[in-house]
Amino acid sequence: MSELINNDFSKIMFDRHSVRQFDPSIKIPRDELQTMIEQAATAPSACNLQSWHFVVIDTPEGKSKLKEAAMKFNYPQIDSSSAVIFLAGDTKSHEVYRDVWQKVYAAGKIDKAKLDTILNTFLPLYEKATPEFLTLDATIDCSMVGMQLLLIARAHGYEANPWSGFNFKTIIPTLGLDEKRFVPVMAISLGKPATDQPVLKTDRYNTPMLTEFR
Amino acid sequence: MSELINNDFSKIMFDRHSVRQFDPSIKIPRDELQTMIEQAATAPSACNLQSWHFVVIDTPEGKSKLKEAAMKFNYPQIDSSSAVIFLAGDTKSHEVYRDVWQKVYAAGKIDKAKLDTILNTFLPLYEKATPEFLTLDATIDCSMVGMQLLLIARAHGYEANPWSGFNFKTIIPTLGLDEKRFVPVMAISLGKPATDQPVLKTDRYNTPMLTEFR
Repeated sequence: MSELINNDFSKIMFDRHSVRQFDPSIKIPRDELQTMIEQAATAPSACNLQSWHFVVIDTPEGKSKLKEAAMKFNYPQIDSSSAVIFLAGDTKSHEVYRDVWQKVYAAGKIDKAKLDTILNTFLPLYEKATPEFLTLDATIDCSMVGMQLLLIARAHGYEANPWSGFNFKTIIPTLGLDEKRFVPVMAISLGKPATDQPVLKTDRYNTPMLTEFR
Repeated sequence: MSELINNDFSKIMFDRHSVRQFDPSIKIPRDELQTMIEQAATAPSACNLQSWHFVVIDTPEGKSKLKEAAMKFNYPQIDSSSAVIFLAGDTKSHEVYRDVWQKVYAAGKIDKAKLDTILNTFLPLYEKATPEFLTLDATIDCSMVGMQLLLIARAHGYEANPWSGFNFKTIIPTLGLDEKRFVPVMAISLGKPATDQPVLKTDRYNTPMLTEFR
């Protein structure tokens, strides 16, 4: 996992801010986009189900299509970014659950007792789960991989913005995804910042105000 | 924002894995826990509403209480960790929305037109939103700050594990939080790994399998 041009953790995390106006002349090679996705996917997920799915939109045709389901105030960042990576939650990721953990067991990483616990304790939770539970799990997984994507973009020398200003009812079919399987979570615009844009680095609350000790 | 003992981004992100068995003799000072929370809260959130709330559980009494709403297979990590940080989503964060953005405007960071757009376009979306929408937004915000917390823990020399094996119906009142305002998202155990535990570094799918280009 290489190609990082910035490996300074504190600069990557603490100096990150949302960029919405990009230099439209910049193209990010698809193999670099794929590398960033692979690096971001080191994120944890519930039961390692990895309930995430990535739709990379980096062509004029793809962007036009995306705009059909996006709110107008997001058009500038769709148009100017090098790519938009749409994160969809996979509510059927557990259907391969048995295989996933059998492989972990076959590789000698867990013992038979652990395998049995996983298959007999966790698998039924998913098989009997409501759509709401599966959507929640997939949403959390996607949000975590999305956060890593925002950081990894900076490590590659790009900036990004996460946004959810799209029509939650139409975005999935608009992107050609199966509505019975995928749920929308967030879009992330990526690119090099436009040089003439003002930087809006927003403040945060003092976290002690939001923290309780028990 | 200092106190980082590891600032190597790629090591922090790519070598992270879930640790569930900690050295119970290790205490993390509360001011360091608060610092980690503050650093993690540089995460983005929808409209910068920061719909997150942190409950830090680091006492025997707090842990006993937490266990009342946690599934048994998580008891070992509750007992052995230095602290559990519970992330609750705040579905009423938008009630201070007007103040938040007025301050951004007053500080000269956005112009009046931008302020008007925010207050007239985005604020009504929240004021008219369903509980499901507000829960989804808060869940995404909390998951992103949670991901940053997992990384920042490593920058401070600790390890962590995110988990959601708790009773979603009882955890909020068990922690003494207002059920009408807060929704459960995830718990994060923090500490130094127990020295005798086997490392389970799980695999990921090949991401090209989960990626589509448009």
